[in-house]
Amino acid sequence: MIVLGIDPGTAVTGYGVVKGEPSLPPRLIECGVIRTRPRDTLPQRLREIHDGVVELIARHKPDAVSVEDVFYARNVRTTIVLGHARGVILLAAEQARIEIFEYPPAEIKKSIVGTGGATKQQVQFMVARILRLKTAPEPSDAADGVAAALSHVMAARLPRITDDFPMLGSRR
Amino acid sequence: MIVLGIDPGTAVTGYGVVKGEPSLPPRLIECGVIRTRPRDTLPQRLREIHDGVVELIARHKPDAVSVEDVFYARNVRTTIVLGHARGVILLAAEQARIEIFEYPPAEIKKSIVGTGGATKQQVQFMVARILRLKTAPEPSDAADGVAAALSHVMAARLPRITDDFPMLGSRR
Repeated sequence: MIVLGIDPGTAVTGYGVVKGEPSLPPRLIECGVIRTRPRDTLPQRLREIHDGVVELIARHKPDAVSVEDVFYARNVRTTIVLGHARGVILLAAEQARIEIFEYPPAEIKKSIVGTGGATKQQVQFMVARILRLKTAPEPSDAADGVAAALSHVMAARLPRITDDFPMLGSRR
Repeated sequence: MIVLGIDPGTAVTGYGVVKGEPSLPPRLIECGVIRTRPRDTLPQRLREIHDGVVELIARHKPDAVSVEDVFYARNVRTTIVLGHARGVILLAAEQARIEIFEYPPAEIKKSIVGTGGATKQQVQFMVARILRLKTAPEPSDAADGVAAALSHVMAARLPRITDDFPMLGSRR
């Protein structure tokens, strides 16, 4: 299963492509950021983000897209603009008919670090450990994209492990 | 000048296509709503909205798209979801390389009714008067889309009138 994880942002959208196979540790295929120009208009930046996600989907053909949720409101205007970015990201995945999963930031942090209040550094550190990378993904937005992908790989595994229990029992 | 006005919404997106010509009253070409199914997922609804706007642009080839702004926060979650809808609308206009103008709801109401605190009924009434329609556009979302288009037609006229003043002066 290949998962494209995305941490949406109008200035910087982080992404990570993770491959998850049963009984093998998850593997990082690619990570990075879609960066837009501050002097561009919001519509131009939205087109950049949409084009970027379309291109990532075409290249990696993921089975699922995992997107960080944004339903908080530290700064309402910023959060609404972020909603615009999420809109074109969800659209790109839907246009490619790929299954979309949304996870709140705290849930992603909890599944990676063990606590929903983890710092960006802790997320980077644990992402590197889980994927056996020599260095943590940079910038932290890329690590957040990878974390969103990893969260889904790990969540998708849980039911499979439960399903296996009866089989394991019958083998003994 | 043909203007496509849009009042964004995830459930109902209102639109109006208005033709504005110098020294002629503005004329309504078409108005209506893009309605999405409540049982559909947000990404599916975003695709419906995007497809609908793409289709409107292809059919009417507007010179400008005028979109109602949403930077208020009565209900933060609703407003953020609305941000998603605006995102795919702005994207559709940008992909077609059409100039985009954004007006806050109060500014649209003020330019149509004369006061930023006008009711939906007042907007419908004045939209019908300005465009010489027998009945007001229904539902009110369609009237709001028409109002967004009209606002831009009227705003775009202002500088033209000012530009004309010296010419008028020299003619006298």
